[in-house]
Amino acid sequence: MLDSTEDRFLYAYDATSTKAVPDVVVLARSAQDVSAVMKYATEHGVPVVPRGAGSGLSGGAVPAKGGIALSLAPMNRIKEIDLANMVAVVEPGVIVGDLQKAADEAGVYYPPDPGSQAYCTIGGSIAENAGGMHCLKYGVTKDYVMGLEVVLPNGDIVHLGGKQIKNVTGYNLVQLFVGSEGTLGVITEAILKLIPKPRAKKTMLAIFDQLDTAAEAVTGILHAGVIPAALEIMDNRSIVAVEDHLHLGLPRDAEAILLIEADGMPEAVEAEAATIERVCRDVGVREFKTARNAQESNDLWKARRAISPAISRLRPTKMGEDISVPRSAIPEMVRRVQKIGDEFNLPIVIFGHAGDGNLHPNILTDRRDAVEMERVEKAIAAIFDAAVELGGTLSGEHGIGLSKQPFLGKALTPETINLMKTLKQALDPRGVLNPGKIWG
Amino acid sequence: MLDSTEDRFLYAYDATSTKAVPDVVVLARSAQDVSAVMKYATEHGVPVVPRGAGSGLSGGAVPAKGGIALSLAPMNRIKEIDLANMVAVVEPGVIVGDLQKAADEAGVYYPPDPGSQAYCTIGGSIAENAGGMHCLKYGVTKDYVMGLEVVLPNGDIVHLGGKQIKNVTGYNLVQLFVGSEGTLGVITEAILKLIPKPRAKKTMLAIFDQLDTAAEAVTGILHAGVIPAALEIMDNRSIVAVEDHLHLGLPRDAEAILLIEADGMPEAVEAEAATIERVCRDVGVREFKTARNAQESNDLWKARRAISPAISRLRPTKMGEDISVPRSAIPEMVRRVQKIGDEFNLPIVIFGHAGDGNLHPNILTDRRDAVEMERVEKAIAAIFDAAVELGGTLSGEHGIGLSKQPFLGKALTPETINLMKTLKQALDPRGVLNPGKIWG
Repeated sequence: MLDSTEDRFLYAYDATSTKAVPDVVVLARSAQDVSAVMKYATEHGVPVVPRGAGSGLSGGAVPAKGGIALSLAPMNRIKEIDLANMVAVVEPGVIVGDLQKAADEAGVYYPPDPGSQAYCTIGGSIAENAGGMHCLKYGVTKDYVMGLEVVLPNGDIVHLGGKQIKNVTGYNLVQLFVGSEGTLGVITEAILKLIPKPRAKKTMLAIFDQLDTAAEAVTGILHAGVIPAALEIMDNRSIVAVEDHLHLGLPRDAEAILLIEADGMPEAVEAEAATIERVCRDVGVREFKTARNAQESNDLWKARRAISPAISRLRPTKMGEDISVPRSAIPEMVRRVQKIGDEFNLPIVIFGHAGDGNLHPNILTDRRDAVEMERVEKAIAAIFDAAVELGGTLSGEHGIGLSKQPFLGKALTPETINLMKTLKQALDPRGVLNPGKIWG
Repeated sequence: MLDSTEDRFLYAYDATSTKAVPDVVVLARSAQDVSAVMKYATEHGVPVVPRGAGSGLSGGAVPAKGGIALSLAPMNRIKEIDLANMVAVVEPGVIVGDLQKAADEAGVYYPPDPGSQAYCTIGGSIAENAGGMHCLKYGVTKDYVMGLEVVLPNGDIVHLGGKQIKNVTGYNLVQLFVGSEGTLGVITEAILKLIPKPRAKKTMLAIFDQLDTAAEAVTGILHAGVIPAALEIMDNRSIVAVEDHLHLGLPRDAEAILLIEADGMPEAVEAEAATIERVCRDVGVREFKTARNAQESNDLWKARRAISPAISRLRPTKMGEDISVPRSAIPEMVRRVQKIGDEFNLPIVIFGHAGDGNLHPNILTDRRDAVEMERVEKAIAAIFDAAVELGGTLSGEHGIGLSKQPFLGKALTPETINLMKTLKQALDPRGVLNPGKIWG
């Protein structure tokens, strides 16, 4: 237990700009530790905020109501890489990148790859149902969680799911806790699915004069029966920002770039890459490049990875959003965001996961400029309205937390929110677990 | 509404041998119909048992406490096959096979394939989280449910999930209702994931002198990085029963047969089939056959499909179980079931999904022989004990319903059952929705 001012301040943050100082910090070393904390908290009505690395992007780990910051970071053992059953058994404090590395060394693959994979924890990535670049083909974190050990608000330790691929014994409660943002239970162990490592990989870059042509290519590739491992889009502003930053030779006048990766059996990768190139040429790509080796592949990814640092240089504050729409709505969504930028006179950079419909419009602004921030708030609301109107939702991979609370009613009906609150109330009648999140 | 004795008796059954006659039958034609029924039922404390085709194997659709049998069968429209987003929007009464056909005609694939696919409904297959032959590679029903419209016990109509691949707006409640056996809500619409149709397919049959060699082949294939579309096992008793029935030329002295299917891009299928054959030969297969065309592929599947009818001929009653274990435990599980058969002097036939760990031990007996049935009950309990001891569970794809209730405590702890009951109580405080199921 830590209670010095310095220690408490260290646990006041996540990767958003919000902060709230906990009254005390507890470092958990076992499910029994967590159970003891939850029993005490429920008995005394003390808030508990579970946290991993504090890398979340919606305020999920911020102790909004004070109380206990419960760090699961010390529980960082990879307990088992079980190749016979293709699962990993891990504690919640394991770094996602460390699990990926351990899987890779064992000859298997753990696909979920949130941008923070080098430092975020498995527990946090499960609590937020994190996504990443490879979700189109491989799915998000929830698709890899086969079993969980969870400590409930009353201190009960429950085991849900398991190593079995098929399991219909009682309710399927694993997924109730995945993405519950630390409000329903504390994850103390996870059984995660591993898959065979793709034997080959091919990275491609396609440059388009027009956004609609890029969108046509996305649809065409999927219709041709190919599901790429990655299918990322950058709009003109992203291209220009990256080019100004890194001088990679990207065309400043192109409306869109697609970064495409095929992986799997070598024979299939060759065939898929050929199909992807053919579709891009058919719709009228300006230029199509295929990486010939790992080095060239890394070079192609460099532009995509450089977007965030490149646009951060442009203005003091970067408001990153995380809308998710049916992928058919991507071109219309991009157009609407561009229009919203014009309407509120704000530079908005658009990039993201074209293949799975998850876009990150980033508004470049200055938090210190109160007048401009008013316009920013209105623009964000307009972006959410557009996403919902197109059949989408507020957040694809970051969560609601504190950041998106005011907008929850745009995406969910009162009946659905009421259902969620009913479940929360049933599991946590005193409201001690991560209070003030999702619906405040 | 139907209330004649004849009509009521028609809705008293599912595919188990249990029956219970409802007081009245209501045919639902819309979510509003269902909402009205649920409001009335909750107000008056009347049991409601939702049902599709009544093809379930655990008593889920049997109106155990009387009340209203609520048929969703009339709601049978495929509302949309949305190719741009690769989803189908369907009403619950759609026959699974009809959806598969519609998807196939549109050039896409809906993989879940329970044995009853020709007549079972989507609603029932979601409520029971049905499996099938292709789950190893393609997952079970839950892996295809992206969104649901559900009517809650209080009559509220809620919309969960959607067409988005990534969605972390609020709790992930779709999966709470998948596999909830009609006890938490009534499904009135589903958004289901579709995937590209595999372009090629190859079916193989491998005959093994010894069970352990077959098990080694299963592990070897998966370790070689190949996930077959199907990987089915038949034990010696299944082989003999099918051979006696159909005279296909199967070897009566073989301890096991594996039926293996690879599918995907033609180039990948060729490569995978070659790997599968090499692994089988390396471990010492007796004979390995590859189908050269669709006709030969169907011939190979004939043996697998004939197991149930073939063994049904042997004795008056067939008690089919549905245990699921981590796939590494398959050989040990088969040996234990064989030993249990010897111990209780009962013929037990074993077949199932070797690749995903879901086995169907079938005890051949005669329900009219009370003395033998006592031994059968003991053997079933012993099979469940063995499955749980090996890290497995009671049911892989049939559900708990009425049939497996007495054994629930073998697989789940009191804390976990308590959590499930807490959720049930929160959503259905008067206990009107499918009462008497799962935990009685």
